[in-house]
Amino acid sequence: MFHEILREIVEKSGGGIGAVIMGYDGIAIDEFFREGSDDELSRMAVEYTVTLKEIKQAAEVLNTGAMEEVSIKTGRHQLIVRSLNEDYFVALTLEAGGNFGKGRFLLMREAYALRDALS
Amino acid sequence: MFHEILREIVEKSGGGIGAVIMGYDGIAIDEFFREGSDDELSRMAVEYTVTLKEIKQAAEVLNTGAMEEVSIKTGRHQLIVRSLNEDYFVALTLEAGGNFGKGRFLLMREAYALRDALS
Repeated sequence: MFHEILREIVEKSGGGIGAVIMGYDGIAIDEFFREGSDDELSRMAVEYTVTLKEIKQAAEVLNTGAMEEVSIKTGRHQLIVRSLNEDYFVALTLEAGGNFGKGRFLLMREAYALRDALS
Repeated sequence: MFHEILREIVEKSGGGIGAVIMGYDGIAIDEFFREGSDDELSRMAVEYTVTLKEIKQAAEVLNTGAMEEVSIKTGRHQLIVRSLNEDYFVALTLEAGGNFGKGRFLLMREAYALRDALS
């Protein structure tokens, strides 16, 4: 069930490379990669897991409400992360020229279904 | 000169609270706060400085090109950070319901002037 939702997010977002549902402990539940993509998304998500945990904790310290979304744009990629609950997040990697707004929208829209599937 | 650019970014972005130019060492060069706002932006930017440095380093490790932009959305705020050069970044805090797209655009547009002023 996760797989189909992840596939839809990747295929419908312009320039989507892959999507993953992962715990803040760095362990993935499921992932979908566009054909021909290497596993850089997995590496990216894992590499940033510790950072996400810190951002989450900082948000609590700053009393600024729970972390909902984090996005990172580099020269070659865009990564959009949406928090699902205390333990899990969904991450989407796009090409640098990909449609950031659409990717963001799809993650927001599918977060409900993903949250349901997790509980 | 920094101050006027920061003021324009805050006032023209819908729901802008404040903007700051800061080094990755956590020391601010200049900042502008909307009247009546407390100094939570400064705290937020400082709190996230270590995190930004990690994201920057991770981007290098992952060979995904230089970090250009990071955004964090929490229940109460949106923070948009744009890298200016190796040492400095500009950060804008918006209310939760603020215009993320416009804030992002203004930071991108003014990055040139800020970079010039820094060099």
